[in-house]
Parts: sequence; structure tokens; C-alpha cells
Amino acid sequence: MRVYNFSAGPATMPLEVLERAQSELTDWRGSGMSVTEMSHRSPEFVSIAAEAEARMRSLLGVPDDYAVLFLQGGATGQFAAVPLNLAAVGATAAYVNTGAWSKKAIAEGRNHLDVRVVADEKDSGYATVPAPGSLEVPADAAYLHYTLNETIGGVEFPYVPDAGDVPLVTDASSTILSRPLDVSRFGVIYAGAQKNLGPAGLTVVVVRKDLLGRARPETPSVLHWQAMAEADSMLNTPPTLAWYLVGLVLEWVEQQGGLEAMAQRNRAKAELLYGAIDSSDFWSNPVDADARSWMNVPFLAPDPALDKPFLAAAAEAGLSGLGGHRSVGGMRASIYNAMPLEGVQALVDLMTDFEKQNG
Amino acid sequence: MRVYNFSAGPATMPLEVLERAQSELTDWRGSGMSVTEMSHRSPEFVSIAAEAEARMRSLLGVPDDYAVLFLQGGATGQFAAVPLNLAAVGATAAYVNTGAWSKKAIAEGRNHLDVRVVADEKDSGYATVPAPGSLEVPADAAYLHYTLNETIGGVEFPYVPDAGDVPLVTDASSTILSRPLDVSRFGVIYAGAQKNLGPAGLTVVVVRKDLLGRARPETPSVLHWQAMAEADSMLNTPPTLAWYLVGLVLEWVEQQGGLEAMAQRNRAKAELLYGAIDSSDFWSNPVDADARSWMNVPFLAPDPALDKPFLAAAAEAGLSGLGGHRSVGGMRASIYNAMPLEGVQALVDLMTDFEKQNG
Repeated sequence: MRVYNFSAGPATMPLEVLERAQSELTDWRGSGMSVTEMSHRSPEFVSIAAEAEARMRSLLGVPDDYAVLFLQGGATGQFAAVPLNLAAVGATAAYVNTGAWSKKAIAEGRNHLDVRVVADEKDSGYATVPAPGSLEVPADAAYLHYTLNETIGGVEFPYVPDAGDVPLVTDASSTILSRPLDVSRFGVIYAGAQKNLGPAGLTVVVVRKDLLGRARPETPSVLHWQAMAEADSMLNTPPTLAWYLVGLVLEWVEQQGGLEAMAQRNRAKAELLYGAIDSSDFWSNPVDADARSWMNVPFLAPDPALDKPFLAAAAEAGLSGLGGHRSVGGMRASIYNAMPLEGVQALVDLMTDFEKQNG
Repeated sequence: MRVYNFSAGPATMPLEVLERAQSELTDWRGSGMSVTEMSHRSPEFVSIAAEAEARMRSLLGVPDDYAVLFLQGGATGQFAAVPLNLAAVGATAAYVNTGAWSKKAIAEGRNHLDVRVVADEKDSGYATVPAPGSLEVPADAAYLHYTLNETIGGVEFPYVPDAGDVPLVTDASSTILSRPLDVSRFGVIYAGAQKNLGPAGLTVVVVRKDLLGRARPETPSVLHWQAMAEADSMLNTPPTLAWYLVGLVLEWVEQQGGLEAMAQRNRAKAELLYGAIDSSDFWSNPVDADARSWMNVPFLAPDPALDKPFLAAAAEAGLSGLGGHRSVGGMRASIYNAMPLEGVQALVDLMTDFEKQNG
């Protein structure tokens, strides 16, 4: 029996996608081999790769003057790739700090350039995002970096910051494909696949082509956007199985009605869960209402001693992956595209029952 | 119907492994989820990861004073990681050039340090390796790098070079697990998984622990061996599905009898194919007898105009992936661990028939 898996990433995938991959795993559409056995230069795999890119472009509305790359190394790899590809030695870049993942991006950025933190939500306990229009970005900054969604804190930008002429760069790992995004506002969007796109081990980078050509010569070629763009992301052997699975997920998103439909579903799921939390005197969520993540919902019981019994009851009920990040404790429900409303309803029912018994 | 797939990588995998993965793909052993959906911090995945590492250590005979890392980025990622982790700015490193992959490692090495090419097989047309004992390695070199097997040229070192006190580093992508290797002779062994280990998207790095601690501060954390070793290769989300599949392949290698058994099988396969080439006046292989790869066997017809008809006849016979690398043409059969002797026999039969009709 399949459980409802609320893990933050790697995360639940659509069962239809897994079943399709399963049916093709020893023989992809009469080719006599698995996708994972195919040469990445074979016509079969090249078509799989190109189809996934085309679907990504179409779903996300990527303009023609942007490259779409399929790389390895996760968002953490891009924490280094961003400064190496966009900024010369000694340059300055602006960063927004909204929590744990921002901090990691900032720490890695500091290895490569002068980081100016233009907003730090420390005083709010990282429970919100800077107000629209409040960022003062130095005109000579190589870029402005922010974390669109903080997976641990459960904080998500409800708006796209204005960086003026400075290229805007975002880690969209948890948000990508969960709702429409105006790509034309960005210089670079990057995302690890293991939330809304599929398996871990693939990283999507969407980069405006006029920003290619700025890379430092010492940029490792696997992180070198221009070199990868010129090689259709096949400068070296790409993670073919992951690429194929992402393609199947993109096809599934298309079948669901695209990003407008995903946004409606995700909004409904988030409203159901936050509504249950807010209508309770027992459960709480510390994030400002307008900065709450639609994807990662942390919630706390009135006493941390109740975490273990709740997680045990959840496991009993077939709800998995609800433990909060080890750095913060409590609970967290990640409700990505592939989590159905029924899963969130089952969680809310459990929370209501648990409150009755322990409230 | 499954074909015999002679691709150089991604490459054929044991059917038993694919079938096992297939049976577990929507529900791993009663967990209610796919391996690819599991949190990498879950007890289930941590056990999968640890078991794969233990099998790798046991099969390859990795001493306790070596770390075994499971990273992303392929061997090409390690072309940058090696200098960044082992050598300060301005340091010198020695490289052996035996062909296309050596050249790529050297080119990327030059971005980070002073590369001294201590042997270059250009004069032989990259058809052999330096004679044992012929390398003069500068005593102050940070390391000596060589490519254990040139996948394109079909050249494989039949011996481990002596680097004295200089750490020996090798790209073992095609050789790893195909026969025993004395790990204790090496400072670092790295290998992309997509030949003998499983799917593309995972890179194994075996590094002597006393070499950790030399990394440059600007080393991207996804390529930082010490940081990865300290985090059990989970500094960020690892490629979990690939890691799991590598674990299944390692289990299969164990069931086959380990590396001695693999070596016997691989030697028999190589002898069958090279024997057929050498006993023919039609087919040829340009590599010196004692430097011929057991894994990648390039072969040429007397006239390149025969390549297309041969490849068409091969496809007809259910033999796939036999085209030579686009940089050299001709044919190439990659006969990794998962290629059975029957596949090589089918190829030899086809070559014999083709020669009769066209010789």
C-alpha cells in the first residue's frame, strides 16, 4: 500500500509516472533496452532530452532568449556556479537572507566574491520576507540572489523582487512548476529536481542568454553554464535516467492542465492545511500569513513532547515524512504538486483527532 | 526483446538488476514509496546508502584509511575536483596523456595549476601506454594523474604506474569493478558510474584520508571531498535513485563471485573478440597488444564505407551501440561486466559473416 509521503525532497511523485517508468524499465518502447542503458548520444535519448526541455519551456513559459540546462550537483552546486558564472573576482553581489537555504547560498557565495546582504529577516525569526520595494540593491552588484522558498522555514516570496537593472537570480527548487512564474523578470532561475520535478540528481538552470559569457575561466566545466548551453547540457554524460523521469513528470503536469491548474490545486491544499492550523488553539505555524509557503508547511504542537506521539500516529495512519527538519524540530508537511488533496485532508483529519485527544 | 547493447556508457546493465528495480519501483519493500521518493535522511535510504558503500569497500578491497564518496558531476566534475582538492594555487601536477580523456583531464587541470605532461603517447597515435618505470615524476608534484582506460581509444593500463611518494590519481571510470585493483597503491580513484556501476549521474571517489584537508577554500562544496566525507556524501541531497541502483549492481557483482570472477569473464570476452579481429585479414584494431582495453574494443573494416552496412547488419541482428566514437569513426564494442559472453559471441559471429560477404 502506498503511503502519503510528506517528505521535503526527495519527495512523492505521481504514481502514474512511477508506473509508466516501471513498465518501460527493461525495454523502453521497443528499443530493447532501458532508458538508463541508452547512450546519451543515441537518437532515442536525444529525443527524450529534447522533449523534456520543450515541455519545460512550454509549461514555464521560458522566452527564447533563455537557455534551459539540465545539470548535476543540486541547488548546492549552483550556490558556487552562480558567482563563478556571473561575477569576476573581486565583484560584489547582493543577497537576501530569509533562512537556512539563503544562508548556505551566502556562505558559498562568500568563497567567490564580496557578498552584500541587503535584507536579513533575522529579527523576524525568519518568519517573513522583505516588504516589496524595500530592497536597496547596489547598482554595481553582479546580481541579486534570493531563495524563492525556504524549505525548512516554510517561507515563500509571494512576489518577484525588483532588482532594477541588476540580474535577478533565484533558487526556485521548491516553487518551480507549482504555480506560474514570470521568467522574463529573472536573469537566472535554478532548481533541484527532487521536489516538484522528479528524482534527486538533476538540476534545472534557466539562464538569460546575454548573461552567458561572464564565467571565470576556472569555473568547473560541469558548472559552466555557457559550455553546457553550447553542448545542449551534454558536455559530459548527463544523468539520463533522472532527465527521463523529469520528462515524464512534465508530461503529467501538462495532463493536469499546466501551471494554472497546479496553482489552483496547490492553493487549495495550502488553504486547507493552514486553515486547520489557524482554526486550532493547539497547532501553530510561525510564518507571516502573506509569506507562507504553499509547498512546505511547518507546524508545531503546544509541547515538543507531543511530536513523537503525533509522528507515530501519522505513521500508523499511512502518513510519512512529517518530522520537522532536524535543525528546527516540530512537524513539517511538504505538499508538492504530486501530493493530492486527499493526502492533505487525511493529514488534517489526523491533526484534528490528535488535538481532540491531546488538547 | 532485449538487444545486446555495446554502448560505451551509459551502458548495458544486468537484466536481473533492472527487473528487481522494476519490481520495487512503486513500493520499496513495503515502505509504501519508491526509493526515488524517500528522504535521503530516512533510515531506509541511509541503510541503502550504507549497504552500497560497504559492498563497494568489500568488493574493491578498500582499506579503512580511505573514504568512499558518492558524488555528482561525473568524471568530468572530478577533472576540476582533483586539482582543487589536492593542490594549492601555483602548484604543479604531473599528467600522463594516453588519449582523448587524458586530454580533457589535462585541459581542465590547466585551469587550476601548472600541468606537467610527463608522458604523451602522441607519437604512437595513442595506441599504447608508457612503458613501466618510464615516468619521471617531479618530486614536488602535487599528484600524478592518469587515465586507467581510454574509452575512445580502447587503451588500458595493464599495470599500476609507480609515482614514488607522489599521490597517484586515476580516472578508473571504465575499469572499476571489471577486475581487481590494488587500491592501496592510489591516492585517489574516481569513476563515473555509467559503465560498470549502473546509471549515469553518480560518481564514486575513493580517496586516501590523509589527502583530505588540502582543498582550496573556493572548492565548490559539491566537489569538496573532505566536506563530503564528513557528511557521508550527504552534504546536499545525493542522487538517491542512482545510488540505490549502484547498490543493486554491486550485489549482482557479489553474486557473480566478485572481482576475480568478473576478471575471468572479462578476460574471456576480450580474448574472444581480439582473437577474432587478429585472426582476420579484414578487421583490425590499432592498439598495442599489451595495452588493449578489456572494456572498449575499437575495430575497423578495411574501408570506412563498410561501417554503415555493418552497423545496419548489427542492428538487424539485435546488436546495438557499435558505432565508433564520433571523433574516430569505425566500430567500437564496449563489453562491460554486464555484457555476457553470448553477446560477444553474437558479435564475433556477425563479424565473421560480414567478412565472408565483403572480404
